[in-house]
Amino acid sequence: MTTEAIDIEALINQIAADAREASLILANSPTKQKNAAIIKLAELIEQNVDSLKAENAKDLSAAYENGITQAMLKRLELSDRMFSDMLAGARQVTELPDPLGETLETYQHPQGFSIEKVRVPIGVIGIIYESRPNVTVDCAILCLKSGNASVLRGGKEAYHTNIALAKLVTQALEESGLPPKASQFIPTKDRSALNTLLKLDDKVQCIIPRGGEGLIRFVAEHSHIPVIKHFDGICNIYADKELDISQAKELVVNAKCQKPSVCNAAENLIIHGSVAEIALPEIAIALRDEGVELRADSKATTILENARIESIAAEDDDWKTEYLDLVLSIKIVDSLDEAIAFINRYGSSHSDCILTTDKTAAERFLNGVDSATVYWNVSTRFTDGFEFGLGAEIGISTDKLHARGPMGLRELCSYKFKIVGTGQIKT
Amino acid sequence: MTTEAIDIEALINQIAADAREASLILANSPTKQKNAAIIKLAELIEQNVDSLKAENAKDLSAAYENGITQAMLKRLELSDRMFSDMLAGARQVTELPDPLGETLETYQHPQGFSIEKVRVPIGVIGIIYESRPNVTVDCAILCLKSGNASVLRGGKEAYHTNIALAKLVTQALEESGLPPKASQFIPTKDRSALNTLLKLDDKVQCIIPRGGEGLIRFVAEHSHIPVIKHFDGICNIYADKELDISQAKELVVNAKCQKPSVCNAAENLIIHGSVAEIALPEIAIALRDEGVELRADSKATTILENARIESIAAEDDDWKTEYLDLVLSIKIVDSLDEAIAFINRYGSSHSDCILTTDKTAAERFLNGVDSATVYWNVSTRFTDGFEFGLGAEIGISTDKLHARGPMGLRELCSYKFKIVGTGQIKT
Repeated sequence: MTTEAIDIEALINQIAADAREASLILANSPTKQKNAAIIKLAELIEQNVDSLKAENAKDLSAAYENGITQAMLKRLELSDRMFSDMLAGARQVTELPDPLGETLETYQHPQGFSIEKVRVPIGVIGIIYESRPNVTVDCAILCLKSGNASVLRGGKEAYHTNIALAKLVTQALEESGLPPKASQFIPTKDRSALNTLLKLDDKVQCIIPRGGEGLIRFVAEHSHIPVIKHFDGICNIYADKELDISQAKELVVNAKCQKPSVCNAAENLIIHGSVAEIALPEIAIALRDEGVELRADSKATTILENARIESIAAEDDDWKTEYLDLVLSIKIVDSLDEAIAFINRYGSSHSDCILTTDKTAAERFLNGVDSATVYWNVSTRFTDGFEFGLGAEIGISTDKLHARGPMGLRELCSYKFKIVGTGQIKT
Repeated sequence: MTTEAIDIEALINQIAADAREASLILANSPTKQKNAAIIKLAELIEQNVDSLKAENAKDLSAAYENGITQAMLKRLELSDRMFSDMLAGARQVTELPDPLGETLETYQHPQGFSIEKVRVPIGVIGIIYESRPNVTVDCAILCLKSGNASVLRGGKEAYHTNIALAKLVTQALEESGLPPKASQFIPTKDRSALNTLLKLDDKVQCIIPRGGEGLIRFVAEHSHIPVIKHFDGICNIYADKELDISQAKELVVNAKCQKPSVCNAAENLIIHGSVAEIALPEIAIALRDEGVELRADSKATTILENARIESIAAEDDDWKTEYLDLVLSIKIVDSLDEAIAFINRYGSSHSDCILTTDKTAAERFLNGVDSATVYWNVSTRFTDGFEFGLGAEIGISTDKLHARGPMGLRELCSYKFKIVGTGQIKT
């Protein structure tokens, strides 16, 4: 092992140990103090827009020289929009109720003592993310409000921006009398830092990777710490045989086209065979008018050809592809059960919808589709922490343990049992 | 790769795929049918006591020839006691409420549709365990009742017993009209089976390892699937300066001696310096009368010597050792804060207790100690699913994600969001 590698290992161990210490203090810090730190951070960001933009410019020019895509450049840019979103987000989080301390359940033991299940922070949360630098601020704030220390590992493209933002986080913590190590950014681009962090299960209690599938898979496979994954959304819409076609048209167009680049946009349209000949051309024309490319199975191709609507032959891979673009796959099925089986096989258990006027069919779909969010006659585009009333979200979990679907402040918490008695012993 | 290795990989893949299929059916199977399968299993076990004992005898004699310890032999033996515990456990689980389908929260979206958070099964749960063959039955039943398919991997020492029990599980499922693959035992002792299983994150949603630290650590480090760990209990009792000494004496003796071999037995006694000179000798004599070996820090040693009570010098390792035996470490501290810091450093975040008549001190302890269960004047021996009113437990989680402390049926569940509207789209 090189000296540098040993240094990085020592650095990450120290960061994690400091985070653990800070987490024990933060767990019992008053709501007021946490909110004050968040407000202070927002103020510091506002006061430092110019210097933050200067640091961001370093990252942008390096990225440009490395020839990254326009889309990636855009994600990296600390734009005025990103500033205002960060600040609005910070202020919004201060208005949310503190999730800690709430009694979730109580139980009176026959021997006369009480057992109370109380919400507490998780402890230290490691967040691994890619190019968007606003994540540094958003995650630090959500962890802080929920009483968790955070260790942040951002993408190397946003390094200078992240370092500058993290400095302000530290300053805000200090000036509010909270432990400055309660939120730390890992100050090295070295890959070994991540590998070290993922092994420190005695100090870090949870890892949340945010980014592309490659990153998430790497983290899940190498972490000794419990991971909450945020994978793709391969969202399906199933148009049942009992169909309100004009509603279906509007809803499919919304789910596909309103913002195609996000995880809750629809990727597959499944149509019951008995209604496809009438419904599919109508829906397809509406989609074509929005510029959507259609990839159809053989039955759908025939229907579309008869209606003189262009399409491409879908391949098996299409059913499990998150296009994040104006592309939609179309599949004809013979039954509700076939639709459910198709979604359970090819979907990503994120958000799936049935369009039908038949309540029995809808209930079978809602129960039978094994996804975090199942919709009946509502666009999949609503899967989001704000829309679900959580006030804010750190992401959308595609795991089934701990948190499923949109994760807000409460999903960043654990619980403990407090037992109070008068000398009871076990006999 | 040898042909055998490929065969095992294919076998485990098939088992997991079958479990996934079965889990989708089981998720919506009626409570009555699940209870009927559990009752049927209990009947089959009763009818097959002799043949089960014959299979168990094969395991016992092989184990004996391999020279395993008496304690391990005992864990392996399908004794009359183990039979009656399994049967009583099975019947008890049928009487517990079905955890599925309960609405946990509802939210009305401003656009006029409803969001309902509903409890659902996790899906497929892999359980990795060691020698006790009753785990095969207990876990199959708890998973079944909570609507989860299970893939069971037992210890090689109990192989014949497990295979015989698993056959009865399959028969009970079949005869009750449930998918027979809803609970499967892995029919090979090959280690590669475990390695393969831990990678199948597209089919298995949760892994619960039950056994020694080595097993749990191996699983946590190699699994691509979320793991809920059940580590040791290094439980601490802190005797504060405001102390009811006679209550303390009784409670420490109970926590240490009532059943020293279990995870919720006390391993460390911490005493406030200002009360140690009076309290420690009294408590120590009571412990000595029960045959407890005392390992004391230097201050405690002095006090014990003055009282002519024998002790051994404690080393740093003692504070983090789960003796599971009649041994107790004793540490003197100068303050409540020192006690809390000691527990957060050396304990295993399992179950820790403060003995005090001072409410303020107790509250600081209950909030400051970062453990799953924190006690005030109650023996740590109560940490248990039955005692907590859960009705049954699959184990005691030492993780902070998903489930912490005793895990019952509800902790074997996830949730989904059901959204019902009338054509709402996102604008």
